[in-house]
Amino acid sequence: MQPSPYPLVRLKPKADARKIRHGSPWVFASEVVTDRRTKKLAPGSLAVLQDSERGELGVVAVNPNSKIFCRMLDRDPGAVIDRAWLAAKLARALDLRARLYDRPFYRLVHAEADGLPGVVIDRFGDVAVIQPNAAWAEALLPELAEALRDVTGVTCVIKNASGRARTLEGLDEGHEVLFGRAPEGAVPVEMNGATYMADLVGGQKTGLFFDQRDNHAFAARLAARARVLDVFSHVGGFGLAALAGGAASALAVDGSEAALVLARDGAAQMGQGARFATRKGDAFEVLEALAREEATFDLVICDPPAFAPSKQALEAGLRAYERVARLAAPLVADGGYLGLCSCSHAADLARFRGACIRGIGRAGRAAQLIHTGFAGPDHPLLPQLAESGYLKALFFRL
Amino acid sequence: MQPSPYPLVRLKPKADARKIRHGSPWVFASEVVTDRRTKKLAPGSLAVLQDSERGELGVVAVNPNSKIFCRMLDRDPGAVIDRAWLAAKLARALDLRARLYDRPFYRLVHAEADGLPGVVIDRFGDVAVIQPNAAWAEALLPELAEALRDVTGVTCVIKNASGRARTLEGLDEGHEVLFGRAPEGAVPVEMNGATYMADLVGGQKTGLFFDQRDNHAFAARLAARARVLDVFSHVGGFGLAALAGGAASALAVDGSEAALVLARDGAAQMGQGARFATRKGDAFEVLEALAREEATFDLVICDPPAFAPSKQALEAGLRAYERVARLAAPLVADGGYLGLCSCSHAADLARFRGACIRGIGRAGRAAQLIHTGFAGPDHPLLPQLAESGYLKALFFRL
Repeated sequence: MQPSPYPLVRLKPKADARKIRHGSPWVFASEVVTDRRTKKLAPGSLAVLQDSERGELGVVAVNPNSKIFCRMLDRDPGAVIDRAWLAAKLARALDLRARLYDRPFYRLVHAEADGLPGVVIDRFGDVAVIQPNAAWAEALLPELAEALRDVTGVTCVIKNASGRARTLEGLDEGHEVLFGRAPEGAVPVEMNGATYMADLVGGQKTGLFFDQRDNHAFAARLAARARVLDVFSHVGGFGLAALAGGAASALAVDGSEAALVLARDGAAQMGQGARFATRKGDAFEVLEALAREEATFDLVICDPPAFAPSKQALEAGLRAYERVARLAAPLVADGGYLGLCSCSHAADLARFRGACIRGIGRAGRAAQLIHTGFAGPDHPLLPQLAESGYLKALFFRL
Repeated sequence: MQPSPYPLVRLKPKADARKIRHGSPWVFASEVVTDRRTKKLAPGSLAVLQDSERGELGVVAVNPNSKIFCRMLDRDPGAVIDRAWLAAKLARALDLRARLYDRPFYRLVHAEADGLPGVVIDRFGDVAVIQPNAAWAEALLPELAEALRDVTGVTCVIKNASGRARTLEGLDEGHEVLFGRAPEGAVPVEMNGATYMADLVGGQKTGLFFDQRDNHAFAARLAARARVLDVFSHVGGFGLAALAGGAASALAVDGSEAALVLARDGAAQMGQGARFATRKGDAFEVLEALAREEATFDLVICDPPAFAPSKQALEAGLRAYERVARLAAPLVADGGYLGLCSCSHAADLARFRGACIRGIGRAGRAAQLIHTGFAGPDHPLLPQLAESGYLKALFFRL
């Protein structure tokens, strides 16, 4: 065997090497021997990880600026992380998505669970958007983009560098077209029979969230002839799916006029503009206003931003989820449906469900729980981190 | 207001009346004042429940022979539980199912969550099968069957009285045609493009389980061109759905020859008999035998009976789930899929997932978790009892 081209990083004797051997993808700064040489490793450089007795555990990406000091890339300590290695990971990820979806619109790479720690890649037909949210991926970005072209045949790759994950890794922000020509204006994306307009350059994250696709589909099953309210609608996720499912009408509420313009464009593309309305404003205020107007709906869905993005924010976040439920429930007609979503890592399923049930109860309503959904299968999880599955969608009948 | 025709049952001062007011459906024997009069109430008789200060909480069904002494029927203490009352509950339950499913094959009533405590009704087109697993429903069975005919238009109602729930209620066992003419032989039921043969009189429970329908559909999405192994297949649930999804072949394993005959009949009805094989035997032994034969599959699904039906059986049950995972994982081709199911009340999602992950790890395999599914939306839950959702299906990629 060739000696590895990479320097060594060693676990402290106290660190739990078994955890790594059993599949844990991360080593924290407190767990590695940090001498002068280790501290000088450039963020994103590659290394061979050893346990305290010099047993080799695999090739890792190192970032001395991050709490996550090492991210496991390959459990073969002789692995070389190059374009071919990246292509093999991408091909494996593509195989799952090609099996699941008829058309090439999906999350192609979901970070650790797809073997590319910190890397998120969304595919919109011939265009891919990379979020290289770890230093190693930033360093290997040209090779990653080339491998992506080789494996998928995309003609344009856009780098979307923004968000909290990058700050934690000490990375800068910014959009960049890595190759090809970025689409001008928003791109139409079909899911569940609806058309969404995705702004791949100017939009929030990558312009469209694929994670709610299966939950949109469930809402659409409830939507026939229904009057639908979609709160925190972004570009119309639930509202447009409901229209595709036969809703009588859909009202989308969001704080961003740019998102609502895209939502209206989507409805127009579907030929459903006449059944679609939007209302710009703070969601809580709009929910209260609708109650004063004595508006009722057959299906209400609230898909707010992460109210509990961290453990510190958990209690306040749960109160916010309870408040959403309490304000939304009175708008649901008797026998109608209420969908409540959370994309908070810190709020696990039981806690989020508890907050929803309390809110519905405080609104004086009784409920059946008819469906619990998570992010779609193009968002796989490492089983060891399954509790951290961030997205939950609960559908109640009131 | 008319005085209620029902006798009174009172909570002890120590009992938590708030719990009932907040939606809890059950009162245990230890929580009610049991005097000579109360003890004489016939199992299944109706009563008005009062808190210790004579505040009325609603109409309940009473069973002095059961640990669950009262089951809440209506929070209106003036309610009269008659054919019209039953019809209203059935109509509400039907409205949900009619919205969800194109054809009238589903669980129509799922006990407490549908407002009919202890009552399970499955619908197979023009035939309904009732499991009246609580004494009150046994007592009102003629009215329930008539209401069912009024609301749904079914032409035959069968009583299926078997199982642990009835024993706990002190009820007898037995099949009976309540009206109409029971179908002779097995009835074809289409779900997810597959045809299942349901033996409504002789079969296990009601002859077909509707609860796995959405999980069958997910497996079918993974099944194109796949070699599929369906362990604990019953009448072919996952295997036939996989064939409908384009599987190259499916092998069904079950201990019951009667179930395998129905599975083969279903495959034949689908015109897929040539791609479908069965193997009768103990599932653990067959898994070990397949490993010795070095058989591999692209999709393996194990849907065993409840290994942990009660808290006492939890640890042994979890070991059995781990063993299923450990024996099944080696049969999955690299990059293939493994679906593991539990229908154990006592094994919650985190514990069941832990057992699966340990088993897969002990087989020396690494996995992504791509999907977590529960029972379908025709099996609603009371939110207060949501932790008790019994069915879990985890899909891994290996």
